[in-house]
Amino acid sequence: MVKDVSIVGSGLVGVVLAISLKKKGYTVTVYDKSEDIRNIDFRGRSINLALSDRGWRILKELGIEDEVRELGIPMSERAIHTEDGNVKYQPYSIKGDSIWAISRGGLNKDLISIAEREGVLFKFDTPIWDVNLKEGILYTAEKESDQWNEIKTDLIFGADGAYSRVRSKMQKQSRFEYQQSYLHLGYKELRIEAMPNGEHQLSKNAFHIWPRKDFMFIALANVDGSFTCTLFMPYEGEVSFNTVQTDEEIRKFFSFYFKDVDALIPNYLEQFRENPVNSLVTMKCFPWVSEDKVALIGDAAHAVVPFYGQGLNAGLEDVYVLNQIINQVGSGSWFDVLKKYQEERKPNGDAIAELSYRNFREMSEDTADDMFLLRKKIEAKFAAKYPSLWLPLYDRVTFSTESYVSALAEGDRQAGIMDEVMKMDEIIHKWDSEEVMNKIKSLL
Amino acid sequence: MVKDVSIVGSGLVGVVLAISLKKKGYTVTVYDKSEDIRNIDFRGRSINLALSDRGWRILKELGIEDEVRELGIPMSERAIHTEDGNVKYQPYSIKGDSIWAISRGGLNKDLISIAEREGVLFKFDTPIWDVNLKEGILYTAEKESDQWNEIKTDLIFGADGAYSRVRSKMQKQSRFEYQQSYLHLGYKELRIEAMPNGEHQLSKNAFHIWPRKDFMFIALANVDGSFTCTLFMPYEGEVSFNTVQTDEEIRKFFSFYFKDVDALIPNYLEQFRENPVNSLVTMKCFPWVSEDKVALIGDAAHAVVPFYGQGLNAGLEDVYVLNQIINQVGSGSWFDVLKKYQEERKPNGDAIAELSYRNFREMSEDTADDMFLLRKKIEAKFAAKYPSLWLPLYDRVTFSTESYVSALAEGDRQAGIMDEVMKMDEIIHKWDSEEVMNKIKSLL
Repeated sequence: MVKDVSIVGSGLVGVVLAISLKKKGYTVTVYDKSEDIRNIDFRGRSINLALSDRGWRILKELGIEDEVRELGIPMSERAIHTEDGNVKYQPYSIKGDSIWAISRGGLNKDLISIAEREGVLFKFDTPIWDVNLKEGILYTAEKESDQWNEIKTDLIFGADGAYSRVRSKMQKQSRFEYQQSYLHLGYKELRIEAMPNGEHQLSKNAFHIWPRKDFMFIALANVDGSFTCTLFMPYEGEVSFNTVQTDEEIRKFFSFYFKDVDALIPNYLEQFRENPVNSLVTMKCFPWVSEDKVALIGDAAHAVVPFYGQGLNAGLEDVYVLNQIINQVGSGSWFDVLKKYQEERKPNGDAIAELSYRNFREMSEDTADDMFLLRKKIEAKFAAKYPSLWLPLYDRVTFSTESYVSALAEGDRQAGIMDEVMKMDEIIHKWDSEEVMNKIKSLL
Repeated sequence: MVKDVSIVGSGLVGVVLAISLKKKGYTVTVYDKSEDIRNIDFRGRSINLALSDRGWRILKELGIEDEVRELGIPMSERAIHTEDGNVKYQPYSIKGDSIWAISRGGLNKDLISIAEREGVLFKFDTPIWDVNLKEGILYTAEKESDQWNEIKTDLIFGADGAYSRVRSKMQKQSRFEYQQSYLHLGYKELRIEAMPNGEHQLSKNAFHIWPRKDFMFIALANVDGSFTCTLFMPYEGEVSFNTVQTDEEIRKFFSFYFKDVDALIPNYLEQFRENPVNSLVTMKCFPWVSEDKVALIGDAAHAVVPFYGQGLNAGLEDVYVLNQIINQVGSGSWFDVLKKYQEERKPNGDAIAELSYRNFREMSEDTADDMFLLRKKIEAKFAAKYPSLWLPLYDRVTFSTESYVSALAEGDRQAGIMDEVMKMDEIIHKWDSEEVMNKIKSLL
């Protein structure tokens, strides 16, 4: 009988899982190797979050949606900053839905306080060095080389991120499928400060993108008037973190590709020099569960690149689905619960990895391409006319809770149709004609 | 200046590497978590070895070839045991070369003694739990949960196999590419004992195969008159380790598929019940080296499935190539040595992984197929007639030291040609005609 649940990792997924299990009556303890982030100035290496429907669903179910909304800013469109200095706007959703920019650090601090209020116990500064998968024992010590202490528990969740220690133990089991692979791109965080009056320097309700084909710059608003920005760029090559290093190189780079940035970030030189370059990993593994004692969740089970803004949303959907399964199966048999959880979520983890990987191209290259924008306009027109016949892929992933597997498959089918449509003669001129709409209908 | 080299793992590659570096004047210490295998009856979970040219090359260079030959038995052909009880023989090489069956345990014991004679120091029962990649420190303790002790060293080789602990530390570095993947097949070891007079029950100079499409049984001779046998079979499915479990099921399985085995292994029932099912992993990673302090070698860098008999040979070729690079570059700059080693060996590790994966099909399925055997005969005929124009893939991999990368590419080119040849009308009747030989020539 499971009473006592241990969660390794106090990141967003770990904490939301903790709240969810506490509400089901379990004793929940969360372990983290780091200190309580509420005590530190969390300005980190993380791209800002874009919370979308899948993320909100579990927060709503746990009754903390409203509290979290206060930390966020809705973004209903992309603002595409072209090389010649113009800005084009492109709504995200055919129905006017928004994704929400939220600071990862701020949200994490808030959720930890909510969890504590619910009765979750947090053990910070408590690194877990190893796990006994069969017995459900965690091993901790201040340093790995010290004598370890045992923590016996009924059920363990590894919510310890892309470099999960819990998973590294599972990886040593026979027949554990595992793959970690890095993009040729790295990223660097920069920051646009608020104006003296506390207002945002750019439209706060847009997701700002400066697409430059092989690299791109993005900016997401924070509630304090600032923007968290991210430069994605190859490690090596003609324009890369390798060739943009000296002050002179950095200055040249910004003045050539991002003319408007020096006005927005007067100290960009300093920021560029000080902030590290971080890598982008895709991690897939299987199985996610070990008998009825241990399960992986969130990035520990499926780490994806950030180009669909779904990494956290996918992790929060893990919690939602797990919750649903407990409701269905009952908490009497965790063996069955975890088995079902894995069966349902693993294919979806793979699907969002694929979607995320593909979306870098869309963001960095296609959004700068007029034919791509036309394609999106045709899709939007058709979807507005026949909403029951066409939900664009972006909406499926971001503004629905259709499974990622289904979204990927339907997206491919729709892409095939749009490929045909874009081949039509004079499509640029007749894009919103009845003929084009009928063509799509005939291909459905 | 590197003086003191530590090798983690006293398996075959680790020990041969130790001998090679000792001969270059380094102080060499080999650490292994297990006890000295010379003190135990090593009857393990390992498929018998088939040592071929790449393996012999380094043993010859180290002056220990003759000593090792005494442990082995040359095999010049495959003996294919068909379902109807017949045996067909198929020579391995167009030039009459042999691969050598050697017991892994016996060879390992011998090599450790040779290494000790050369002055290599062995520290058995000394598990290495972690590595400091920058400083070159190994951490050891009896149990992982005990207080660790530090071992400072100049250069570390991880020769600790497919589940390398040294590699698992490298895996935590940013941008480390890693993939481990399992076949749907497992394997189980069985043993054919010698006859009362000490002779072999089957021809000892053949590699015996009972190909049965989805599964197969193989037998390799030992010098003591016995054979080490391996059953490869899926974990799940109609005929699988899952459906062959009870005595009744095991009996039915052998009497149906391997009629001759009960005479050769009277206690096969007992052996089948007692011996474990082991898994088959392919592991790829990159980088193999960390600055000038740490390098992976053998299975720790590239674990392959055993169907080409090249796993150990590839590892020994790593040692050979490293040796050559030290001779060229000089041992003054280990940074350059390790960089070159990695550049040269990584593509070859990937190539032998691919070749090994593909060869299961050839062994289990194609060798039972008359058209496949005909194809081999045509190749052999052409190669005999024009030895400078055609070296079959198997010979390239097994009886040459051409790089695996080149063997794979050339093999694909030749396969394309043979596909065309096999489409010729009446090929069964005219396979050794001048017309067919000219066709091949025209396609080269």
